[in-house]
Amino acid sequence: MIVNTCDPDIASFDAELANDIFDELRRTTSDGIGISRDSYGDRESIALDIVEDRARRIGLMTERDAAANLVVTLLGQDSKLPYIACGSHLDSVPQGGNFDGAAGVIAGLAILADMKRRGVRPRRTVKLLALRGEESARFGKAYMGSSALFGKLRDVDLAAKDSGGRTLSECMADVGVDIERVSRQETLLDPSEIAAWVELHIEQGPVLLARNLPIGIVTGIRGNIRHRAITCVGEAGHSGAVPRWLRHDAVFATAELVTHLDRHWRTLLERGRDIVVTSGIVETDAREHAIARIPGTVRFSLDIRSQHTETLEAFYDLFLSECAMISEERGVEFRLDRRIDSAPAAMAPDWIRRLKTSADRLGLPNEEMPSGAGHDAAVFANAGVPSAMIFVRNENGSHNPHEKMEIADFLAAISLMRSAIEDAAQ
Amino acid sequence: MIVNTCDPDIASFDAELANDIFDELRRTTSDGIGISRDSYGDRESIALDIVEDRARRIGLMTERDAAANLVVTLLGQDSKLPYIACGSHLDSVPQGGNFDGAAGVIAGLAILADMKRRGVRPRRTVKLLALRGEESARFGKAYMGSSALFGKLRDVDLAAKDSGGRTLSECMADVGVDIERVSRQETLLDPSEIAAWVELHIEQGPVLLARNLPIGIVTGIRGNIRHRAITCVGEAGHSGAVPRWLRHDAVFATAELVTHLDRHWRTLLERGRDIVVTSGIVETDAREHAIARIPGTVRFSLDIRSQHTETLEAFYDLFLSECAMISEERGVEFRLDRRIDSAPAAMAPDWIRRLKTSADRLGLPNEEMPSGAGHDAAVFANAGVPSAMIFVRNENGSHNPHEKMEIADFLAAISLMRSAIEDAAQ
Repeated sequence: MIVNTCDPDIASFDAELANDIFDELRRTTSDGIGISRDSYGDRESIALDIVEDRARRIGLMTERDAAANLVVTLLGQDSKLPYIACGSHLDSVPQGGNFDGAAGVIAGLAILADMKRRGVRPRRTVKLLALRGEESARFGKAYMGSSALFGKLRDVDLAAKDSGGRTLSECMADVGVDIERVSRQETLLDPSEIAAWVELHIEQGPVLLARNLPIGIVTGIRGNIRHRAITCVGEAGHSGAVPRWLRHDAVFATAELVTHLDRHWRTLLERGRDIVVTSGIVETDAREHAIARIPGTVRFSLDIRSQHTETLEAFYDLFLSECAMISEERGVEFRLDRRIDSAPAAMAPDWIRRLKTSADRLGLPNEEMPSGAGHDAAVFANAGVPSAMIFVRNENGSHNPHEKMEIADFLAAISLMRSAIEDAAQ
Repeated sequence: MIVNTCDPDIASFDAELANDIFDELRRTTSDGIGISRDSYGDRESIALDIVEDRARRIGLMTERDAAANLVVTLLGQDSKLPYIACGSHLDSVPQGGNFDGAAGVIAGLAILADMKRRGVRPRRTVKLLALRGEESARFGKAYMGSSALFGKLRDVDLAAKDSGGRTLSECMADVGVDIERVSRQETLLDPSEIAAWVELHIEQGPVLLARNLPIGIVTGIRGNIRHRAITCVGEAGHSGAVPRWLRHDAVFATAELVTHLDRHWRTLLERGRDIVVTSGIVETDAREHAIARIPGTVRFSLDIRSQHTETLEAFYDLFLSECAMISEERGVEFRLDRRIDSAPAAMAPDWIRRLKTSADRLGLPNEEMPSGAGHDAAVFANAGVPSAMIFVRNENGSHNPHEKMEIADFLAAISLMRSAIEDAAQ
């Protein structure tokens, strides 16, 4: 039942459906600059309605689950078998792009729609989930739609407020979430009933573009260890009047720390470890900094990511050790705020193999790669559902209006996803 | 004619005069938090009046020069000989301390007053200059009072405005400066008529405290090369999704630059060069920085200081070379704003020797050291006047209300200054 990527009939069917829905989404959820589909907001609901309406017109069954996500179902011959779930999210960051999230939902709909029109009835049921609330932009919490399904939203999450002072709980209730069950942390979706979660997503980095590959097969989703604000405390002084041996310069100390971390990073990469390190925010204190003043304090953030917990922990230990050594050497102090952890999630090895085999068979150049950004797939994987992700080449990153996914790459990725799902559903 | 530092009569005379004037200055020019004697402002004028009044009561001649500085004169036996000038400035930064500047004026007054009361008449005339406008806080320009004397204030300086929109020119005219002559850049003070400029000042760094020495003999005033804002331009991106080989991280590049500069600095110190390096302002762009975003730009300042022009230039070349290498390695760009230079000023070697000899003879522990901060002495030296500076141990730096000079250290420094001036005036 393998579908060749070059089948012109299927390709034109996918293309028409994709163009229609992307256009309608753009028309209805644009904010003038980019795309804004706030988590649990009106435009997210509009997006769900657009997809549901199209699914119904095709003759697919639709419903909303207890977390108010959209579920589209193609019944299999043996409805007792665990089903294949696919999809992604339909919300976006403010002034974001049209493809982040929506591409995965549209890909799933194209696959179900094509099976429906061709009268294909696989052994296993196949479901599309159009999830809500994946982006953390509104409430500071990500993966709300999938976390709710697995009873993973805590009271503190539900009490989080948006900039207008409305709680997540209120906004969820507005769109029909069964907030009582969610706040009881009930399992709304039984992981044992799901054979797999398959999610297609635009790549949010530049690797596929740099490698000239249309698709990537995700091996795992990087977890992270973060500090929002580490403060290096030294001693301010006149830039001309304090010699090096009497200095406690917070900028020189922080620069040395970052440079040493960079060296450790390189070493770990050379040894084949997966890791990325970022200090996205660095600032001397605007209330007192000056060109002619030795900086007394610097505040900086740290974000360490890896697919492997042991690599994260090993790097974090190196970081602490460097802080201690530099503190001693330079007479400064590194004050750490609360460490924030997010666990890595491995994609299912047999699904990585299945995608790899299918891609090779379809003649699609591909590469295995980690996902550096988080996705709902991590929630499914960590709930015990065998999970898989396909990345589509994309220029200009995500979370901005300039996301650029070529339709040809998207069609290739859909054909891979279709091939793997149809294979697994038999 | 060497005066022993332990002469109890002179010490108590100096102490009484110093305490009186410091007290009166504190009483009349405090702003509630610290001392505020704005350049060419009312409280600067009050300070000049206080010193002038005391000088007159002692019987010394006083006048205001064409730049409205206070001049106190003790006529020598041979008034045709070039005279010895001493003093410092009476303005302060807002919420500053009582000693920065004023200590040098009071020391000079104590020396003239003591000679007057003892009926000493040296061969050379000795003058005290209580200068205005040394601090750059109000108009962004330093050494205005001394620069005006040597015709070194340019139109652009005179047109500089304070935060209230008043020009330096207007404020100078208000206190009686002959603004026509100043704006013609006339030489109001002929350097060839001055045998020496001797300035006592609190140390603005922690060296004398760390070395446990009451006084320092200044070898030279460090010049500097500065950039207010260098921008490192890299490429922003998702902190998880861009691997190291595709990054153009502005923070990592800047950290490497600072760390390499630190290494070069250490190397130059080991080879006996005089240099200090500071990056007082460092900041990622607050409009777009985030913990999970690779920083696309960093803005930072650079301040390199040395007593020697060749060391400044050598270090600046190393800086440019590091920028080029790191740019190439990391695919970033360092955009430099205008380079700002300030020339170093050497103190006169025979005066350094004279002060050293006197200090040793007086039994005063001392050390030769550079001045990292700028002083009017640099203007005198660069105008061709043999210049000398004595530093007094001071805790907590300057330009703040916590300046802490012990009266015993101050008396020791006055006795050294007196000894050297009386020696040179014979």
